Amino acid sequence: MSISVCIFGTGAIGSFYGAMLHKGGASVSTVQRSDYDHVKKQGIVIESETLAHSFMPKKVYRPEDSPEESFDYLVIATKALMIPDLHEKIRNFVSPKTSLVLIQNGIDVEDQLAPHYPHNELISCLAFICVTKTSPGTVSHMDYGRITLGSYPKGTSTGTETLAELFSKSIQCGISEDIIKDRWIKLIWNAPFNPISALAGGANTLQLLSDKATKELIITVMKEVRSIASKAGVAFPETVIDGNIEATLKMTPYIPSMGVDALEKRGMEVEAILGRPIAIAEELSVPVPAMELLHTLLKQLNSTITEK
Amino acid sequence: MSISVCIFGTGAIGSFYGAMLHKGGASVSTVQRSDYDHVKKQGIVIESETLAHSFMPKKVYRPEDSPEESFDYLVIATKALMIPDLHEKIRNFVSPKTSLVLIQNGIDVEDQLAPHYPHNELISCLAFICVTKTSPGTVSHMDYGRITLGSYPKGTSTGTETLAELFSKSIQCGISEDIIKDRWIKLIWNAPFNPISALAGGANTLQLLSDKATKELIITVMKEVRSIASKAGVAFPETVIDGNIEATLKMTPYIPSMGVDALEKRGMEVEAILGRPIAIAEELSVPVPAMELLHTLLKQLNSTITEK
Repeated sequence: MSISVCIFGTGAIGSFYGAMLHKGGASVSTVQRSDYDHVKKQGIVIESETLAHSFMPKKVYRPEDSPEESFDYLVIATKALMIPDLHEKIRNFVSPKTSLVLIQNGIDVEDQLAPHYPHNELISCLAFICVTKTSPGTVSHMDYGRITLGSYPKGTSTGTETLAELFSKSIQCGISEDIIKDRWIKLIWNAPFNPISALAGGANTLQLLSDKATKELIITVMKEVRSIASKAGVAFPETVIDGNIEATLKMTPYIPSMGVDALEKRGMEVEAILGRPIAIAEELSVPVPAMELLHTLLKQLNSTITEK
Repeated sequence: MSISVCIFGTGAIGSFYGAMLHKGGASVSTVQRSDYDHVKKQGIVIESETLAHSFMPKKVYRPEDSPEESFDYLVIATKALMIPDLHEKIRNFVSPKTSLVLIQNGIDVEDQLAPHYPHNELISCLAFICVTKTSPGTVSHMDYGRITLGSYPKGTSTGTETLAELFSKSIQCGISEDIIKDRWIKLIWNAPFNPISALAGGANTLQLLSDKATKELIITVMKEVRSIASKAGVAFPETVIDGNIEATLKMTPYIPSMGVDALEKRGMEVEAILGRPIAIAEELSVPVPAMELLHTLLKQLNSTITEK
């Protein structure tokens, strides 16, 4: 019998990884809100040069439904920390045997779920991907796709390994024995590039790094993240910073997701990327003035664009 | 014989004050670029509840024209520090008797002209006004309108007083004996509100002051401006800061001009509002970390929106 998966949060990321799991042989259902009618009729389409895949979900649910079946994995790919009471909203889709699979950016995102589901396994994931939803049920995959899974808070498990094996049939997938550390490593990039792109009107990576003062600001923020992580017990070498800058300069220039959100006037993952790390910095008495100033501006930008 | 004025820079500000001078009895010509044909046929229209006025310029020039007549006043109302070689571009409109009247925001804006016209009087002006150009030759006046004039670098003169008298026939006008000081006082407001609004997606004054962290940031920037000015020999009392915040809270909420520029993807007066004051701070060894960070972000935003 195939592995059963349900996708909660069928934006670009959820739809994409749902399709990859389907391609790998899983039985995939989805929970849809605005796209319910469309996906029920037309399914989900991933447009891509390398990873194109279309599928009809086994079943399409609405968020308020109570499925009779129980799932092996519930993939949660909503925007990080942007749904109040997320744990309540997923409850009908979680049975005692269901592993929760959280694909979100940022720090401490597991706190939304872990305390509320102490008996369910929680698999925490980081996605390295450029995807955009272009119309109902349709996602355009631009680049990358690798996903990293780890059992939360640490180590691995049969559930994690089975899921990693399934992902590996269609896409690059790695297991992390220390997903919290990997979240900090990813934050080194996210904390400067995402907010600064958004504040700078959706500037792309090359535009950001071509300006000397902006590049210095990016490095300042990276150092602040490194200081917090280090005080929190997660050490990385200084070379991580130069390595990140060099790797970014080699990429095809692209607009970080928050920059895209700002351009399209969508809510941004402000708290997962800056708010939580700053709160941890405060607890640990680590000064992070640049992150604090970016946080203030980004919250203000976020409320301006979402209020309109 | 009536006083002869030519307006160079017929955006919202130049058109508005040109109309006010015409209303007061001056003979007003204009220099037009894109709106040349329209203004030649239809003139300039100021829409306003309180200050509406339409007029046909005595003569409409193109920037490359060489007028035979000579003007008493050449009003220069281009965006601050955004036209390279401004002094060259106005040369054909300046005769030995012409007083230069610079209506621009920011600090050190007179440097563009003063060294190049040592024998012409320079009258430096600050405009307190909300106006927007809505279509060719048409400007919508939303609020305020007061203008402050001073002889540069200090004091007053017959030319300044004659112009002030002319303005006073149609609009509130004050003479400043120390226009450089008044530029710093105005910068206390401009340096925080304009950049932060632009970075925050065109947030209005009330949105900016309603968020506690943003309000604190605004006050931090005001204190930085006050420190530079104080070290530069321009002292104002601490109460200026609270006074500015309270006065802004009483205003009808509005989007500062840089916020409007950002929304409409127009170039912003980054250097006049932040770049020059920061350069002065560096010379005087005054630390201004918040202004520096805003400057970096704003330059990046400016190049993103003007490159697209």
